[in-house]
Formats: sequence, structure tokens, C-alpha cells
Amino acid sequence: MTTVAVLGSGIMGSALAIPLADNGHEVRLVGTHLDRQIIDSVRSGGIHPGLELELPASVSAYQLEDAAEAFDGAEIVLSGVNSFGVRWAGEQLTSLLTPGQLLIAIAKGMEADDEGNLRILPEVLVEPLPEEIRPQVPVSAIIGPSIAGEVAVRRDTCVVFAGPDQVALDRLAEAFRTDSYHVWTTTDLLGAEICAAMKNCYALSVGFAEGVLERIGGADDAYRAHNFEAALFAQGSLEMRRMVQVLGGRPETADGLAAVGDCYVTSAGGRNVRVGRLLGQGMGFSEAWERLGHITLEGAAAIRVIGGALPKLTERGIIGADEFPLLRHLYEVIGLEQPLDVPWERFFGGEPDRRQARAARATVPAGDRTLTADPAMGAD
Amino acid sequence: MTTVAVLGSGIMGSALAIPLADNGHEVRLVGTHLDRQIIDSVRSGGIHPGLELELPASVSAYQLEDAAEAFDGAEIVLSGVNSFGVRWAGEQLTSLLTPGQLLIAIAKGMEADDEGNLRILPEVLVEPLPEEIRPQVPVSAIIGPSIAGEVAVRRDTCVVFAGPDQVALDRLAEAFRTDSYHVWTTTDLLGAEICAAMKNCYALSVGFAEGVLERIGGADDAYRAHNFEAALFAQGSLEMRRMVQVLGGRPETADGLAAVGDCYVTSAGGRNVRVGRLLGQGMGFSEAWERLGHITLEGAAAIRVIGGALPKLTERGIIGADEFPLLRHLYEVIGLEQPLDVPWERFFGGEPDRRQARAARATVPAGDRTLTADPAMGAD
Repeated sequence: MTTVAVLGSGIMGSALAIPLADNGHEVRLVGTHLDRQIIDSVRSGGIHPGLELELPASVSAYQLEDAAEAFDGAEIVLSGVNSFGVRWAGEQLTSLLTPGQLLIAIAKGMEADDEGNLRILPEVLVEPLPEEIRPQVPVSAIIGPSIAGEVAVRRDTCVVFAGPDQVALDRLAEAFRTDSYHVWTTTDLLGAEICAAMKNCYALSVGFAEGVLERIGGADDAYRAHNFEAALFAQGSLEMRRMVQVLGGRPETADGLAAVGDCYVTSAGGRNVRVGRLLGQGMGFSEAWERLGHITLEGAAAIRVIGGALPKLTERGIIGADEFPLLRHLYEVIGLEQPLDVPWERFFGGEPDRRQARAARATVPAGDRTLTADPAMGAD
Repeated sequence: MTTVAVLGSGIMGSALAIPLADNGHEVRLVGTHLDRQIIDSVRSGGIHPGLELELPASVSAYQLEDAAEAFDGAEIVLSGVNSFGVRWAGEQLTSLLTPGQLLIAIAKGMEADDEGNLRILPEVLVEPLPEEIRPQVPVSAIIGPSIAGEVAVRRDTCVVFAGPDQVALDRLAEAFRTDSYHVWTTTDLLGAEICAAMKNCYALSVGFAEGVLERIGGADDAYRAHNFEAALFAQGSLEMRRMVQVLGGRPETADGLAAVGDCYVTSAGGRNVRVGRLLGQGMGFSEAWERLGHITLEGAAAIRVIGGALPKLTERGIIGADEFPLLRHLYEVIGLEQPLDVPWERFFGGEPDRRQARAARATVPAGDRTLTADPAMGAD
């Protein structure tokens, strides 16, 4: 039995309180400044409004101003904010974290500098910590296919805890692991984080298929566009593998849970897929995002960051110009508001005989070649 | 423009007539003895009853007794039968095939001998051919995520043509490739066939999730079991990769279209997933198969063959006893009619600290440990 402080009471941070509580641990859930109503709700009747579930009695909830009390004596600290809150969370941790506490985080995403150098979020999280404390805080991350609500209702879930320190990982895994929450560990934090960030990009692209089907009038067809989805999924899996290699992660991290496993569950639905569907219908990204009420889209954010870094990495000779064709096009669509036009012939190393046809087509004015009336789903 | 003879007028063989016809080729569709009504239908009004579509006018249909006429002068021969018809098709080809014809096949599956040696189906297909002709018939195979009906209505589809002879592959790809039917080639026929056969096994297992959810009364829950599906999908992708390695295929074949791409589309629905769902509900395999009207189940067949070979390969020291835990359990469920009890703790190289718990549990009599009342979906 131990004590775990969770910073951020969104659905994932809160869902993880369930396996912890099932293991008899005391969980202290600390809301961010955006979470006041969640904390009020948990304090008054135990209900987490996002999960629509009652949290166990051993979970106590704290408003942000009481965070110091919540962190006091905690062995484990879970950073439960998403990628947009990582810098904020790091700043909070400078005053809250004490050396010796085990830190684990859930945010998925990357940051890039002007030269296209990509950084994983655990690095960003601990950046505000004083330099003398930072080496004493080996930050770990939870990676893998886990829809928060399913964790909360104890559906079988398999995840990877990734971090630089095996001793810390073993202790964290022991604290979280239950009969339904299955935990493996890896010291390839870099590779696992790359997959975690990129899978959101490719899951978004899987959403194109339904939208394209609707655009060509096939919304009610018996035949869907699963072949289309599967091809994008497969190309995405190759691009994740390649990026792990480029940035120096371990190849085996791109197998299994962190990459295809997580991409599979993310492709099954959710926000990224919904925006992908609108893009498939022919909507521009800004319009699609507005239609969805400017919701948080970690996939679109990751496309802007990682996709935006690709031309710089190409210019520097780190990757080839023909690599990452799907992510490059995702950046064109989401970062540059260009129309969707899936570059099939550039996938899987390039389809023989098709490059020339594509080059010829590219000379047609953009207005004439967008989104097409071809029965072949229009995307090529 | 060329002539293509298709042996077997099931939905996939017939769907492939569409890209061929779109490329201006003459397609001669030959029904098996089981296809008489299909051929009658195509001959009388052009409608393929399985696809529920009218085939192009350049597709002509032949009853089996007219096969010689259909094969006469054909440059390309497509074996359109499924895995259960491969031996039969090979025997037909002994009298029909002429040296120089390019042979390509679609069946997915494997065969095993008494020692557990696994063979791919293209080898089985050409086995009946006279020994002096066999080397002149480099048989290729179509691999990758392609639902037949989607190919027939020209949805974007990405496939791999695999075979030993690059010149043959290039010619075949050229004949089939259209703006919506995208074709890559590989000379790793072995690796591609292994993935094609095994992906059906793992897609079947993905179907467990919905069934288990129904069994625990969660059929109408807002929270599904996507984490469960994704974990099985991920474990399956690792087992495909490993089998490619064990049998001497190329590692990169286990990336992309042939493995995760095809497994993705197969997991999206179909017969294998349906039987998996019934098994998840707690039904035994025989009962589930009867419930489905004894339909053709390539996934179940592949589980019996490949899963049945695993103990023999283990005994011979070719694979470790802890390898292929998912496929071994699939064999227990489908080959040996044992109850479903997902061995999570053996996945991904083994979950630390859980093996002992599992061993202890295994000492409980089978009747007491089946299918559980645990809220954690019961499978562990």
C-alpha cells in the first residue's frame, strides 16, 4: 500500500486511479485550474463527470491550491495532463515534487525546434525542474492501447511503462498492475514515446476512409472502405518504425503494443478519427476543427509538429525525400490546409510505374484535380 | 490487352476481374463444380450473385467442362479458389495449364506434415503438376488487405504480389494495376504467405472481445473492449513477425500490408470475427461453428494447422515453449475445444510477476475456472 498523487483529473489520469485503488493504494487526485468542476463533483458525491462513474472511496480529490497537501508523502506522482498541459505541469512540479518521488506521465506528443529536432514530452515535462533535482527524477511514461473509460471499468488492458530506470519501472508496474490492467516495461522511452505520438497522426488518417466514402455518395453502400483504412494503417506502421530508427529508438519498440496496438485502438474511434472523416468529406482542416468545436486534437497537433519537422530533417539529409509520404501529406492537409489527395503511389517504398503518372497529374491546376468524381473513391 | 483465365468464380476471383477488365483485358471466369449457379447467373445477365454486382461485358463465364476453352490462349491464370480448394485446383491445372502461362493464386492458409513442418499453399497448388513442367510455372500470390467487394466497386486497395520471379511479378502487376487497385511486388513469397495465413488466426481472436463483453452483460455499455482487441492485435503482429523469422522469410515482410494491414481489415469484420465473438460469449467451437451453419472458416483452419504444428516445433527445439502464446491458446480453444481464457501474462515476452499467479490458478479444476464472474471481462 502506498500513496499516489495525480496531477490533472481528466479521464485518463482519473481512470488510472481505479487499478491503483484496486491494489489498495491511496490516490490523491489534483485538478488543474481547468478541472474545478470535476474536483467539486468527485468531492461531493464521488462521481467523475467525464468518466460518468463513481470513483472508489480511497480516491480523494484536491483543488489545485491544495496540491502541496496532496503531494506530501506520496511515493508516486502521475502527471495526468495531456500534451497541451505538459509545460504547465512541469512548472507546477518544480514546487511540488520532492526528490525520491517516482514520476510517471501519460501525455502523448512531441516538440520540435527550428531545425526540426524532435523531443519527447517527458523531457519537456521535467525541463522546468531545477538542474540539481532533474537527474534524481527519472520520468517514466504509460504507453499502449488504453481507452480511459475501459481502464476505469476494468476491461482487460495491456500497456507498457517506459522509462530510463528499470528499478523505478518495476516499482511503478507493481503499483498499477492488476488482474485486468496488464503492465510490461521497457527502458526504450524514446522509441515508445515516438510511437505514442505518431499513432495519433495515423489514426486520424484512418478516419479519411469513411469521409471519402460519404463524399462519393457511398455512405449507405454495403461495401465500405476498409481496404483504404487498412492501407493507411499499414503505411502508418512502417512510418512509425522508420522514425523510431531515425531518432535512435529500438526497432522492437515499433512492434506490438506501443505502435500497432495503440494505433489500432485509436483508429477504432475518437476525436482524431472524427476530424479525419470530415477531411475525407472534402472539408478543409480549419472548417473541420471549427465544426468539432475546436476540441483538443492531439493527432492534429502531432502532425503539425512532426510533419512540420520532416522537410527540415530532409534538408539536413537525415531522412530521404521519399520517406514518410503519409505524414508529409497529413502535414499538407492539416498544417497547410491543402486538399486531401492520398499519395498511394508513394507508399510502401513507391509503387512502380505510378510515379510518372502522378508527376503528370500534378501539372493539372489544383482546382481541377481536387477530390475528384472518380468512382475509385477519388483519392487517387 | 491480354487474356486472363480465372479458375473459381467465388467473390475474390470474380472481383479481380474488375481491375483486369478496366485495363482492357479479356477475362474468362471458370466456375468450379460448386459454382454452377454463379456461372449460370453471369452468363444469363452478367450478375455475380455473391458480389451482387454486374460484371463488365468483357468478362465471360464458363462452366467447368469448358475450362480448356477458357484457358486456351490465356497469358495469365488466376487460381481463385480458397484454401480448401487448392489441392483440387492443382489437379485441374495439370490438364489445363500450358508452359509459359503466368500463374497467380489467392488462397490463404498453410499445410503441415506430421513433424510440424509448415508449407505454403502455392507449393501445394503446383504439387500435382508434372515434374518437368513445375519449374516453368513460377506461381505468384496476391497478398494484402483486400475485401473482395471493395475491389469490385473500385475502392482504393493496396496489395502485394509475391512470387519467386520478379519478371513474372512485374508483368502480373502491370496487368492488374489500376488507379484504385494499387500493386507492389515482393520476391519473399514465403514470408508473405505466412502472414496471409496467420492474420486470419489473429483476426478471429480480435472477435473474442465483443463476445466476452456480451458474456459479462456489457453488450450495451458505453465502454466497449477496444483495449482488449488492440492487445490481441498487437500480440498477433508479434507472432506473425516471429513466424516469418522462424521459417526463413524476410523480416520486413512482417511490416506493412501483408501482416498488420491485412490483419487490420480482417479484424474489421467477417466470418472469422463472427466465430471469435461466439467463442468470447463462452460457446465451444463446435457449437459456434454449427451456429454459423458450418461456413468456411479459413482462420479456424489455419489455427488447427499452424497452432497444431507448434508443439511439434517446440519439441524439436525450433521454437521456445513460451513463444506464440496466443496462437497456442487459439489452438486449445478451436482445436481442442477448451474454454477461452486469454493468457495475458504470457504475451509480449511474459508479464513479470504474473506467471506464478497463473500457475497457481491452473491447478484449480477446469470446471471452476472457466469464464469467470470477474468484472475485468472475465478472460483473466
